[in-house]
Formats: sequence, C-alpha cells, structure tokens
Amino acid sequence: MWLRSDNAAGVDPDILDFLRANNEGDAQPYGDDELSKSLDARFSAFFGAPVRVFPVASGTAANALSLSAIAGPFDLIFCHQDAHAFMTECGATEFFTGGARFHPVQGTDGRIDAKAIGPAVRGIDISRGNSYRPGALTVTQLTEAGTAYRLEAIQALGALAKETGLRFHMDGARLPNALAFLGHTPDQMTWRAGVDVLSFGATKNGTLSADAVIFFDPALAAGFKRRIKRAGHDLSKSRFLAAQLLRYIEEDLWLRNARYANARAAELAAILQKVPGAKLLHPVEGNILFTSLPDRAVAALGKAGLRLRSKGRTPEGDEWFRIVPSYRTDPEEVRAFGAALGM
Amino acid sequence: MWLRSDNAAGVDPDILDFLRANNEGDAQPYGDDELSKSLDARFSAFFGAPVRVFPVASGTAANALSLSAIAGPFDLIFCHQDAHAFMTECGATEFFTGGARFHPVQGTDGRIDAKAIGPAVRGIDISRGNSYRPGALTVTQLTEAGTAYRLEAIQALGALAKETGLRFHMDGARLPNALAFLGHTPDQMTWRAGVDVLSFGATKNGTLSADAVIFFDPALAAGFKRRIKRAGHDLSKSRFLAAQLLRYIEEDLWLRNARYANARAAELAAILQKVPGAKLLHPVEGNILFTSLPDRAVAALGKAGLRLRSKGRTPEGDEWFRIVPSYRTDPEEVRAFGAALGM
Amino acid sequence: MWLRSDNAAGVDPDILDFLRANNEGDAQPYGDDELSKSLDARFSAFFGAPVRVFPVASGTAANALSLSAIAGPFDLIFCHQDAHAFMTECGATEFFTGGARFHPVQGTDGRIDAKAIGPAVRGIDISRGNSYRPGALTVTQLTEAGTAYRLEAIQALGALAKETGLRFHMDGARLPNALAFLGHTPDQMTWRAGVDVLSFGATKNGTLSADAVIFFDPALAAGFKRRIKRAGHDLSKSRFLAAQLLRYIEEDLWLRNARYANARAAELAAILQKVPGAKLLHPVEGNILFTSLPDRAVAALGKAGLRLRSKGRTPEGDEWFRIVPSYRTDPEEVRAFGAALGM
Amino acid sequence: MWLRSDNAAGVDPDILDFLRANNEGDAQPYGDDELSKSLDARFSAFFGAPVRVFPVASGTAANALSLSAIAGPFDLIFCHQDAHAFMTECGATEFFTGGARFHPVQGTDGRIDAKAIGPAVRGIDISRGNSYRPGALTVTQLTEAGTAYRLEAIQALGALAKETGLRFHMDGARLPNALAFLGHTPDQMTWRAGVDVLSFGATKNGTLSADAVIFFDPALAAGFKRRIKRAGHDLSKSRFLAAQLLRYIEEDLWLRNARYANARAAELAAILQKVPGAKLLHPVEGNILFTSLPDRAVAALGKAGLRLRSKGRTPEGDEWFRIVPSYRTDPEEVRAFGAALGM
Repeated sequence: MWLRSDNAAGVDPDILDFLRANNEGDAQPYGDDELSKSLDARFSAFFGAPVRVFPVASGTAANALSLSAIAGPFDLIFCHQDAHAFMTECGATEFFTGGARFHPVQGTDGRIDAKAIGPAVRGIDISRGNSYRPGALTVTQLTEAGTAYRLEAIQALGALAKETGLRFHMDGARLPNALAFLGHTPDQMTWRAGVDVLSFGATKNGTLSADAVIFFDPALAAGFKRRIKRAGHDLSKSRFLAAQLLRYIEEDLWLRNARYANARAAELAAILQKVPGAKLLHPVEGNILFTSLPDRAVAALGKAGLRLRSKGRTPEGDEWFRIVPSYRTDPEEVRAFGAALGM
Repeated sequence: MWLRSDNAAGVDPDILDFLRANNEGDAQPYGDDELSKSLDARFSAFFGAPVRVFPVASGTAANALSLSAIAGPFDLIFCHQDAHAFMTECGATEFFTGGARFHPVQGTDGRIDAKAIGPAVRGIDISRGNSYRPGALTVTQLTEAGTAYRLEAIQALGALAKETGLRFHMDGARLPNALAFLGHTPDQMTWRAGVDVLSFGATKNGTLSADAVIFFDPALAAGFKRRIKRAGHDLSKSRFLAAQLLRYIEEDLWLRNARYANARAAELAAILQKVPGAKLLHPVEGNILFTSLPDRAVAALGKAGLRLRSKGRTPEGDEWFRIVPSYRTDPEEVRAFGAALGM
Repeated sequence: MWLRSDNAAGVDPDILDFLRANNEGDAQPYGDDELSKSLDARFSAFFGAPVRVFPVASGTAANALSLSAIAGPFDLIFCHQDAHAFMTECGATEFFTGGARFHPVQGTDGRIDAKAIGPAVRGIDISRGNSYRPGALTVTQLTEAGTAYRLEAIQALGALAKETGLRFHMDGARLPNALAFLGHTPDQMTWRAGVDVLSFGATKNGTLSADAVIFFDPALAAGFKRRIKRAGHDLSKSRFLAAQLLRYIEEDLWLRNARYANARAAELAAILQKVPGAKLLHPVEGNILFTSLPDRAVAALGKAGLRLRSKGRTPEGDEWFRIVPSYRTDPEEVRAFGAALGM
Repeated sequence: MWLRSDNAAGVDPDILDFLRANNEGDAQPYGDDELSKSLDARFSAFFGAPVRVFPVASGTAANALSLSAIAGPFDLIFCHQDAHAFMTECGATEFFTGGARFHPVQGTDGRIDAKAIGPAVRGIDISRGNSYRPGALTVTQLTEAGTAYRLEAIQALGALAKETGLRFHMDGARLPNALAFLGHTPDQMTWRAGVDVLSFGATKNGTLSADAVIFFDPALAAGFKRRIKRAGHDLSKSRFLAAQLLRYIEEDLWLRNARYANARAAELAAILQKVPGAKLLHPVEGNILFTSLPDRAVAALGKAGLRLRSKGRTPEGDEWFRIVPSYRTDPEEVRAFGAALGM
C-alpha cells in the first residue's frame, strides 16, 4: 500500500552512518557507555532545562513506561478517544501501570479541549474512595487526526493539569511535525507549557528503532531504570540507542526531516483540494492526511499502481483513506499521485 | 573494565552491511515486510522443523515473553538459582506471566540435574489447590557459570518435563557458544531434546539489538503477537530486526562468531592455568571464565592497564573475576593479558 | 440517611438462626465441610441444571472473580456505562483479570440493548492483533437504574454473545428483585437465556456476608479455586458461608424477601407519583427508586427526620435521590414518608 | 480428621451473641456504621498507640493486603521458608503487591534469626538497579512450627529492619497464642518492637470470619481503602465485621481463648512425651504440635476413632502429624487421646 505510514521509511542515512562510526571498539553495556551517559546533558541543552532521558526501542514502550511513572492502579488517565495509547497499543498502559484506566473523551479533529474536559475531571467523586481518581492526562502531538494542538491549547491543558493535580504526558510520536508546522521550539511545547513527561518520538522521523522517555521533573525518574529493565527495554548495546538519538537532534536533523514530510503532505493536500468529490476530513497540519475519495478517483489511483489503505466509508458513501508521507517520501510519488488524479 | 562482557562488542560488520543493504525504499511496518514474513520459513529450515519466530529487542524480553507463553499466575518455574531470568531481570518474568513464581534449585557449575530436581517437581502437593503448581522449567545454555549442558543432560530434563507436565524453556543467550563447544546442531540441543520454546540469543554474538522467541510447538504462539505488542516490543521498522536475524544465521555467521569467542576464552584459560595461585572456578566450556587471582596478579594486570571486574573474594581470600571475550575480542588483548602475567 | 441502601439492613433472622444451628462441633475448613460440599448439588437443583458454586464474601469479589474466569488481559468486557463493576468497584475487574478492559455502552434506563451493541461488538477490528478483542458481556439484573431487563432482552443478549463469541456474565446483586417483579424463575433468566456465569447476590437480600459465583458451564470453573485463594476469599470457616447461602434458597426465603422489598418500593413510588413536582427518573421495577423532588418536599421530609441521599440536581434544578428499601424496611417508614409529603 | 486445625472450630458463642445484638435496625454500609467507625479508637486503646484498623474476611487477605502497603513490584520480602504467606496462599502477595518477590530463608523451628539474615539483606547488590531490592520482612507469630519468637528476637528483627530500611510485617494469625505463652502484651510484641503492620488474626481464635490489618504507622494506610475495595474485601454490612473484632478484644476474650487452646496443646504434649517412640518435632509453645508417632500408636488412635492428618514420614520412617487444638477443643478429646495411647 502506498504512503500507508511513515513507519515504512527506512533509516536516515546520516543516522546509519553515525551507527557505523560508533561501531568500533568496546563500550560498556546497559547505559554505562559514554554516549548513553551524555544523553541527559545533551537533551537538557536541547530542551533548555534539566531533563532525564531514557531511550527505548518503540513508541509503545515510551508511552506505557512514561505513563507508568505518573499513574498507578487507581488512577484515571484522561485521553482523546482516538489516542494511540488507548486504541492501538493492546493494553500496554494498563499493563505497565498495573491497572490504571483510560478515561477517553471526545474532541474535534483529534484534540482534547481544556474547557470541555475540565468539568469531567473535577466531576469525579473521590470522596468515598471506592473508585478511580483523576491521575494523569495524555495528549498526542501531532494528533491522531493529523492536526496540531496550538501552543495555547497545550498551555491551557497544562494549567488544568496543574490545577486539578493531574500529571501531564505528551505522546510526541510526531512532535517534530507539529513543531515544524507551528514554528515553536521543543521547550515551548513541552515543559514550559506544563508537560511533565514526554514520549520523544524519533523512529517515524528517521531513526532505526529509538524513541525516548523525557522527564522534565527529574523526581519522576526515581526507580524508572527498574521499570525499563523489567520491560525488557534495557538494551545491552546501549551505545547504539544513544547514538541514534544523539545524531537525531544534531544539526536539526529532526526538524529538517519533519519539514520535509510536512511539505509532501501539503502538496498532497493541495492536489486533493482540487479533486472533484474528494474531501479532507481534518485540517492538514503535519504529515498525516485523511481524505475521502470518490470511487472514480480510487479507480484512477489503482490503475496507476497507487493503492491506498481504505479505512471505511463516510456517511456519504465515499471511501476514506489515511495517507502519511515521511521524511523520505520521493517527490516523484507526489507527482505521480497528482498525475493519476488528472492534476 | 576489560573483557567485562560480550555485550561490550559492537555489531558484526556483515550484519551492519546487511542493514544498510535493506535500507532502501519503503517496507510495510510491524512485521508485514518481506524480511519479517520470511522468518518462519527461514528458521524452520535452520532448525529442521516448523517453528514460529518472534523477534524482540533484548534477551530479557525474549525470556520473559517466552515464559509468559508457558506459565501463568499459579505456575512454578523451576530454574537454577543463578539463572539470569531469576537473578538479573528485575522481575520481568513475574511481570509478563502475571505472577508465576520461580522455584530456584541448586546445581554444580550452573547446571540443573534432572535426577536431583525430579523429586522436587514431583513433591509439590497440588491436590489441595491452594498453592503454586509445577508449570515450567527453564535452563540457560551456555550456563551462567560458563559451562555447557551436555546433550544427554538436556534430553534428561526434556524427558522429566514431559513426564511431569512441565513446559521446557531454554535461555539461549549464548547457545551458539555451547553448540560450538559441544559440536551439536541447534535442532539436537532444542526441540529434539524436548525444548518447547527458546530464547534465541544473537545480540551478544553479533547483532545490534535482535534476539528472538522460537516456538517449536506452534500452538504455543497463539495470541503471542498481542503479548509482544503490549510489551512495546512490536517494533515499527520490523524489517531491520528481521534483517539482523536473517543475516546472523546465514553463512554460519552465528557459529563462526561463537567459535571465535570460545577460542579466545580457551586461550585465556590456558594462560590462567599457568598463573601461580590462580584458579578457574568452573570448567571453561564457552566464552565465559570465572577465575580467582592472587593480589600480585591483579596488581600486574592493573599495571598493564587491564582492569578486571571484581565479583568478590573467595573463601581463601583471593579476588575472583568474570571474564567474557566476544566474537570480536582482539587476539592482541589475549596476548597482552598473558604478557602482563608473565606468560 | 434514610433508605439509602439495602445494604443497611441487618441479617435475616432465619439465616442468623441457621448460623447458630450450625455452630456446634468441628467442621473441616476451606470448603471441605459437609455444608460446602452440598452446595453444588443444592444449587444445581435450584437452577435445574448442573452448576458449580463458589461462595465469596462480597459482590465485588463475585463480579471480579466471575469476570476473571471469562476474560483475560486482551479482552474487552462490554457493559452498560453505569455498571457497578465498571463504576464502583475500584478496578477490581481489571485487577483480577490481569488487564481486561471495560467497553462501556449507553442505554436507556440502565439497560444494554442487543440490537444497539451488536454493531459495536462486530465492529472491533481484530485482524491485526494489535488491540483488545471482544471477550465478554456483563449485564446487571436488576439494573443500576432500578429497572429489570425483560426475559426477551436477556435472551437477545445471550444470542448475540453466542453469535459473536462473547462469554456472558450477569451481575445478579439484586436478581431476586428482578425475578420477583417479572415472575420468571432463576433458570429462565440465566442459563436458559445464555448466561455463562452469574454473580449470585444474597447479601443485599438477607445474608450477613455471602454471595456466590455460579458457573453454568462447569468447564469455566477449572482452576477457579486458586483464583479464590489468591484473592483471600477462600474463607477458613467455610461452613458459615455455605450455611448462609443454603438457608437463603430454602423455603423461598430469597423470593419472599425480594417481593417484600419490591412492595415497599412500589408503595413509595405510588406516593411519589402523587407529589406535585416530583418525578421518577426511571420505571420502578424492583426495590430501587430514583426521584427528583422539589425543594419544599425535601424540606418537609427533613422536618420529619427523613434525610435522603442527594445525588445532584436535574437539568430542571430539582434535587434527585436514590431510595432503596430492603427486605426489612418497616412499613411504618413508608407511611411516615407519605405523611411527611402530605399523602 | 481429628484436631486437624483450629479453623475447624465454630464461632465463639459470645461473639455470635454480639452479632445478634447488633442485628437490629439499619446501619450505614461500607465502614460508615458506628461500630466500624469506633475501630480505630478502640484498637488504639488496645495497643496503647494510635493505629489504623482495616477489617478483612480472611488471614490471606490480611497478609497480602498488609504486604501490598509496604512492598511493591521491585521489592524483596524476606520470610521464613515455611511462611504461610509464601507457601500456602497461592500467590496472593505477589498478586496484591503487583510483583514483589519472597526471599525465603532457613531457620530452626520456624524462626528467622536476625543475626543470620542480616548478611543476606545487606548482601543484595542494589547499585546497578537491575534486580529486586530489599523491601520488607515478614514473620509469623506463632510460627508455622508452633514456636513463639521471643520478644528479644522480634526486637532484634525490628532493629535490623530499621537499620536496613525494611518495612516489618507480622503475620499474627495466632499472635494471641504466642502472647499467652510468653506473657507479653500486644504492644510489646508489635509496635514497641518495631513492627510496622500486623495481620491481626481472630478467626482461628473465635470469630466467624474477621481478621484485620493494623497499621502502627498511620502513613502506611494512605490509599489503603482502595486496595481493600479492589480486592472485594470492602464488605457492605461492615457492622458485623467490626462487631466480631470489637467483641473479640473485649473482656480479654482473645487471651482467654488463646490460653485455653494452649493449655490443651500442653496436655497433648505431656501425653506425647510419654508415648514410647513418639517425638515432638518442635517445642510446643502455643496451640500447634508436630509429632512423629510409631505405627502402633497410629493404629491405636485409629482404633479409637482419632484419625490424624499425616504430613509424611520422618527420616527414621515414622509418620508425623500436625495437631492443632482450638479455643473450643473439648478436654474430653484430650483425655480420649491419652487413653487411646495408654496414658
């Protein structure tokens, strides 16, 4: 299937080169190597604040481990009803937290609105101690709908979290794409806005298999190493995890790659807006597009060998699709898409 | 520290090349790529029997996930008291199984003896249903003491497992080193001897970060994909996990590397046997040595810049050490070791 | 607070007498006493089918243990959004199942409708194995809204469960009240309608502290004793748990008590229907009433010493209340209620 | 079987009377009744210190819930290798703690010795954070061997716990029998000696089904109510749980009953010491005896209708038995025992 996912891209060649460059000689395993030991300082510089960094091999691990540091068995985790951690991670968060429960809420275009959920959070009766209590809030930036939370919206959620005692987690699997779209810096969108812990996504945007948990409140990191070990995510040849992450934030590679993917998405959106009968289901604010297409357009794409991944049919009867260009999507693919649709 | 661990070595250059060779173009993520889909067939050929293969990023994940497929909350898992899964994985197995309990047993040179544990297994009173019941057996090959179970010993444990209804797991973090020492084939030492599920270690012996769970009874794999997803071990860019494993078993790379490491260990053992006052604590049958050293020998090594990792002192008062050469240990390091000790 | 809960009533004197009558002499503990051993046969006669009976000390234990026998870590449990097991048991089901997830659905008057939830169950995409799968269905009879599922509705849910592979659990904390209202027998409303496992409530209707898990499919009971033991619900002096349950189903005590409580509820409803400005929020079909009351009525009750438990305010601004007469509610209390309201 | 267990006795008639006396009228459920609300004050007086009291329905619940308040997923719980919580509670502690691990140690006559385990506790290497860490210590008083820890021994364990940062739990399933034997008071043997949390046993010594968790450090009780609810141990008709416990500590009923049972045990021990070939396996310091008996003695008892519960055979080939008289054991039973053995 064509442009099904940014996970389909390989490794950024610069990162692969850096792995090779660090392959000589021995290095202490399990995080005691020099690269791993430099992560805290290097990411603290990146975020402009003291952070603790824990590399992991997947976004699911980053999310579930992050949430396990801020929510336990009796805690509610407020999330959007489409949240990846809630919908597509097979109970990882329930597992790692030992029984926290998601409290999914609705929201347009994949976004939670602080004003709308405030009453829900405050309305939980915890006086009798016989049920779950509000514990954490998680948002996905870029959202699952491909939209970006505006900075003010994250700040409002941060303020709500602080006021109501929720810990605030951000699933940043595509955070660079949101930042590239909005023009904000990583610090503005995270700790300065009230985020306590971040799933720092990198794999979709260029690494081989390296994401990270970033704690902006170092106290939350107490005992976290044991959680990682217990999960089988304390990788022995840790230098390579660290190397991927370090190279990823060098020379704005993360930002350059995100901008590139966003640009391809914008081009695709521009084409789709001209296709008769096609309709974008959400604003395109990163590298994900949701679009409906009339059957003749689907057929035309198919004839050109561009098979999309159908997600179902809209109430109007058109098929709809999710398209996710990556940091490596060939501009030729975009041109072929337009050509097939007669643009 | 010198020769502290085979995890200190980098990636086998052949494997790194293969990663690069597979980095072009897009590939379906999450195991739907062509390399991942070829794993079952390729490893079935490797083992001479139909197997199911699930790549994971670490040996701890391989062990805990393997055991979770064969032991549940009320099951005892018999293991050697030094078993890595019991001692050094921070409760991963308890976590993934939802509450299975290890039943550690003693045994010389890191080995469990079927005759010795038979009565222990049979002696568990399960008639009243108020406690744990025998569920599984796990052995480590090469053992944590650096010794290799003889084939007959594994066969006897397999027979005991079958007779008493235990499922049989092998932690093969260094299985190649044992096979290289003994001259047996992978199939002889695993399913033909009664092993149900194997943690197929590769990272210590050449991959970047790729081990695998191998089910010899495909029925045990039912639902296993969800366990992997829930653990955060369903890596998105799965082609690279598969690539590591596939290259690892090509052209006997696994065996060549293991033989190499074993040869370095044998050379080190030969040196140590000549050092006055030094004593090997276990037979050297793979790539791990345990040795005591008199203080003057420790001092001589230190002067030569070869600092070993002390594990404590023997009853006789000598320090003892664990030395683990790898598939990439430079023969020059061995020579320097001998030279420092006057050999 | 007045008539806050049927849990406020004491023990039925007949049951207390039976406890005393069985207090002489020794009896084997932990379920090996004669009374406990008679439970399966006695309840099989009661239900007209072979059942397995496991007494427990609370309704929460009955629900969570029941569900743990039919749902595991990756299973969705469909329930009404007001279900007691979901809302008021503090994660017991998540805990005992090791991570099952509730999938709450809406429904008028506390009831799930088979036609409405069918598409939800069938719409879960389980093909990719990366998320929860449909596993079980639980209904509460009498519902949390005080209404009774009609037999046909339970049968339709049973048929849906069978068709879609869901296991079907009934939380029968107040099943007798529903049966008393509808005139059906226990077998009709349970196994004959497709229920696999029942939380057989007795405490609200007369016992001291004894409910039971009833398996209509004995295969589901395999290993269940260990679950009870692990939960601390394998009570040592088991004869007294059994005695409560046995006496409870003798001489139609369960039905007589339920009819009595229902009758008091009907009288209260009749009064409320005549109070100007009062409004029953749900049909009264058992022993639970939800009613709104104008402020002057609340004041009048207060003056008469009848303080109700406020549950909030309706959109119209009236306070609303939950009233739950029990098998022991004094008719004089009902008369006083009417008198205070001028009836 | 004869004198198999003190769990075989019924309810103390005084306690049953008190239940009946408290059966009139309504009472708030779930711990909001007057009796439940008086527990903290009443037990604080009993122990001479401010305590928090949480009634539960079983000793297993008391142990597992107690330990869950002081040990979590990465904690070791040091215990005697015969500890009931370790051996006979089917993983309840692993379950409630979310993965703590028992670290069983040996010790003569069922007792842990502070001097002996000190090195074991201190020897756990926690520097690398990759395995379990010392978390808690639990002792059983009266021990599983029927012996009583001397006050000095408990004090030494308390001092060790404090020094090494372990939380200290006492399984007091038969604490009254130990206190009756030694002549100490409840406060001396618990908080004054360093115990943090106590499983306060009452069921074996007279209640129907009521034990309690007693926190001597009220801070440990934070959030404990949710743990009880989640376990299904928050009983609705809580007044009856409270009533049992309150009556149990009135008028020294607990002590009177324990003395009675101990006296019967002492009489049985005196008989056994005179039986040729019989041998007491442990000192008799409470109401539990372990004895070997020659075959002719077993036969003689069988002829008299006194069938004991065989626990196996000693190395010498004699059968051995566990005998547990209770607070209600008829002296006539003891006389019959002696008569059968010719005493």
